[in-house]
Amino acid sequence: MRFTSQMGLALREAKLAATAGEVPVGAVIVDARGKVLASSGNRTRRDCDPTAHAEILVIRQAATALGQDRLVGCTLYVTLEPCAMCAGALAHSRVERVIYGAPDPKSGGIDHGARVFTHPQSHHRPEVIGGISERACASLLVDFFTQQRTKL
Amino acid sequence: MRFTSQMGLALREAKLAATAGEVPVGAVIVDARGKVLASSGNRTRRDCDPTAHAEILVIRQAATALGQDRLVGCTLYVTLEPCAMCAGALAHSRVERVIYGAPDPKSGGIDHGARVFTHPQSHHRPEVIGGISERACASLLVDFFTQQRTKL
Repeated sequence: MRFTSQMGLALREAKLAATAGEVPVGAVIVDARGKVLASSGNRTRRDCDPTAHAEILVIRQAATALGQDRLVGCTLYVTLEPCAMCAGALAHSRVERVIYGAPDPKSGGIDHGARVFTHPQSHHRPEVIGGISERACASLLVDFFTQQRTKL
Repeated sequence: MRFTSQMGLALREAKLAATAGEVPVGAVIVDARGKVLASSGNRTRRDCDPTAHAEILVIRQAATALGQDRLVGCTLYVTLEPCAMCAGALAHSRVERVIYGAPDPKSGGIDHGARVFTHPQSHHRPEVIGGISERACASLLVDFFTQQRTKL
């Protein structure tokens, strides 16, 4: 059951994103005591911003909340394996731990593709745990894209 | 001389960043006709935001200017080889071309390390040209870090 309650918050953000027509991915950042500093879903369409993935948005929110650009001791929960952009941002943020739901063979950048944290050019390598609430996280995405195709 | 006038704008942004105590990297995005849509230097300290690299800031500005999250036909000029985060963002933005100044063996993510565009998980691969105004771009960084060390 460890990690699942915080992932539940990320899942709620993902569902809200889907309702708004965004790809349903949600993220939460908590501090070392478990206090929620930031939560968001994807907002690339609403914000007209290709960088507005849930992870980028919560990194920025949490940094503002802490008044510093390094999220030392913090944990990020996200429903989908982060892409290369978000993995790079997580390295810059110095977040301590990344917990993700569904793996992403098509676009992932931690355990697939660029594997951003494995290179010496990544100056920080957070602990990474994948597969938390995987089925719920993945089914949200499958349902969303099935509905999108039905609309075509 | 091709590319150097736009790189001159990026260099000016990098110098302004240095004056503000930021790592001196600057970036510019122009549309297919060469019109400047966005320009910025790094602002991670000022914005208290680990994602506020010059490239991310100009991608967001340009998307706002165009009213769309895809920068089709646009070219990004940046004084330093983009990191993995920025390379991932550039792929998401669908920018057509990336022109950079100095290569970055320590932190680069295009021609070093994660080599983000080389993986199938990167769904867009811009044309990349490096080494434009390389000496001027690199010397700004060398001077900045030399001064930082002198202050310690």
